[in-house]
Amino acid sequence: VIIVPADRLGRQIAAIFRAWGMPEEQIEVTVGIMLEADLTGIDSHGAAMLQLYDQQRAAGKIEMNPVVRVVRDGPTTALVDGGGGLGHYPSSIAMDLAIRKAKETGVGVVTVRRSNHYGAAGVYARRAAEQGLIGMSTTNVHTPSVVPTFSSVSMFGTNPIAFAAPTRRNPPYVFDMATSTAALGKFKLAAMAGKSLPEGWAVDEAGAPVTDPKQGIRQRRLTPLGVSREMGGHKGYGLAMMVEILSATLPGAAFAPVRNARDPGAAKFNVGHFFLALDPTCFRDEGEFEDDLDDMIDALHAAPPVAPNQPVLVAGDPEHVMRARREAEGIPLPDDLVGDIRTICAAAGAEFLLGAAPGSTTE
Amino acid sequence: VIIVPADRLGRQIAAIFRAWGMPEEQIEVTVGIMLEADLTGIDSHGAAMLQLYDQQRAAGKIEMNPVVRVVRDGPTTALVDGGGGLGHYPSSIAMDLAIRKAKETGVGVVTVRRSNHYGAAGVYARRAAEQGLIGMSTTNVHTPSVVPTFSSVSMFGTNPIAFAAPTRRNPPYVFDMATSTAALGKFKLAAMAGKSLPEGWAVDEAGAPVTDPKQGIRQRRLTPLGVSREMGGHKGYGLAMMVEILSATLPGAAFAPVRNARDPGAAKFNVGHFFLALDPTCFRDEGEFEDDLDDMIDALHAAPPVAPNQPVLVAGDPEHVMRARREAEGIPLPDDLVGDIRTICAAAGAEFLLGAAPGSTTE
Repeated sequence: VIIVPADRLGRQIAAIFRAWGMPEEQIEVTVGIMLEADLTGIDSHGAAMLQLYDQQRAAGKIEMNPVVRVVRDGPTTALVDGGGGLGHYPSSIAMDLAIRKAKETGVGVVTVRRSNHYGAAGVYARRAAEQGLIGMSTTNVHTPSVVPTFSSVSMFGTNPIAFAAPTRRNPPYVFDMATSTAALGKFKLAAMAGKSLPEGWAVDEAGAPVTDPKQGIRQRRLTPLGVSREMGGHKGYGLAMMVEILSATLPGAAFAPVRNARDPGAAKFNVGHFFLALDPTCFRDEGEFEDDLDDMIDALHAAPPVAPNQPVLVAGDPEHVMRARREAEGIPLPDDLVGDIRTICAAAGAEFLLGAAPGSTTE
Repeated sequence: VIIVPADRLGRQIAAIFRAWGMPEEQIEVTVGIMLEADLTGIDSHGAAMLQLYDQQRAAGKIEMNPVVRVVRDGPTTALVDGGGGLGHYPSSIAMDLAIRKAKETGVGVVTVRRSNHYGAAGVYARRAAEQGLIGMSTTNVHTPSVVPTFSSVSMFGTNPIAFAAPTRRNPPYVFDMATSTAALGKFKLAAMAGKSLPEGWAVDEAGAPVTDPKQGIRQRRLTPLGVSREMGGHKGYGLAMMVEILSATLPGAAFAPVRNARDPGAAKFNVGHFFLALDPTCFRDEGEFEDDLDDMIDALHAAPPVAPNQPVLVAGDPEHVMRARREAEGIPLPDDLVGDIRTICAAAGAEFLLGAAPGSTTE
């Protein structure tokens, strides 16, 4: 593991994107959103994505110099076309548009089509909360990995839901969940650690539990949140479908099983995203919403815990602690990831900036 | 069990509300929404609620002749004050307002404060879908029953989320879930059937599983969807909090733990609701959204099942089948419920209309 200051990691990611031909404005926005994930401990959604982006770029699935356009624009709604590029840049435009519309009219809903992976959903929702608004973001995924209740095949991605709301005393409420029982990133962590998966995270085509993480990753049959019918798995399935409808059906992005059946050789993915911003002052006097939410958060933190050494947490607490720490100390990067980035730099002709140098620490 | 045509059950509920002093306009709307639940098989949220409504009415918790007013009204948002009455009538006004605003501007968000139980959340979301819009509805609950991850006390209600979207070939997509692993209604069914609860639905204050349904109902410590931290229970907890923020914090309704600490003798509950309507034609050409959603539903129905005799279902399928059957055959009412209604009628001085008579069937 090496520990790297955020700005140096940012310069490294930027150098790679530049070598891949991404325009400067898109680099700045994309790097900022990826660093948000790395700073808050959502390690699976930041620099660790570079290798997959590289593969998809090389396979012609992602356009590195996309034309991103607002193709529909109404008083409260808009549709952004991502031009087949990475999702961060059109999503940043979309969330900012939703925020502007919410400030003007009370609510803004903006969707994105012809996009790709957009990083951590919570980053966008949080942006609304930092502007005093409720924010929401969802995305679909190009490759199915979640099995509907009673189905033997995967039909949805891990289709996350992020929701954020503003506060005064506390950090904003930022909630970001995959609608599967566990995210694929946790499968990779288990594989690296040589551990088994808990029964219920993944199943085989007969519905039996899969506990080998490598088999789980290869077969991509994750359970929806709730796992079985008896324990509410149909609810996770319904949430995944809600996310698919908002993120893909609404902007006109692809639902993978239908796309794959109709156009198995499709050159580009067509991922979609959904963003909502909502102004609490349309309902409450200035500050009342934030005060009530602070009271709720305080009451949850003060709730008697089952175990005295594990207090009750509120969504976003771990990320808030991690951000403070990593802003001060830097971002830890596992050796495997540093090696991958070195390889990507060499292949792309980008300078490698993560070698031992002043400001880095080796553990 | 007796089987009663919907219109007769409706006249029975109306007679009781009339005897309790509810105004005619509110009776008509409330009865219609309760019958929707009974017709679609959501038996816990229709006529079966009468006994609880009666108790809460007698205890002064529910106002039977409330003044319901729109207290804030913007281009895309509104706030409805329920006047302390039952939730169905102000919620019907709120959803219709959200639909009107969505048709005018693209999006409508309307919340309700000073309300009470509003029946089945899906009824409101479905109303938007029947008008060609995406609909969403959430509500909080006056009494906590769901335990946040790591907490030994309940902090949230079963806080449901309903989401609906329009189609052409298929019935509209209507998804309605409690954010707990199982709804309290299922505890009552288990108690009546003399069955144990599955491990994971409820816990005691030490976090150990409770399988006795009566103990589960008495202690009211339901797990959030996902159950344990390992299986994603923190996601169900986060969803319950999202619903609380939208339904209570946003309109200014009560978060029960804070209310109970500050004002333990509060005369009235102050339940809140959230309604959203969104026009797909702001993003897609007329009919494209519906066609894509129909394709998704068809693909799910056609997905290879794990067991050949249990095809893959889509949210709303069982309710759709049940509605057709009960519209044709009538609504079955268990003897206990008929007895309760007879008692309520006698106490209120309302005519009892469910006795053996032409049009009823006794099984």
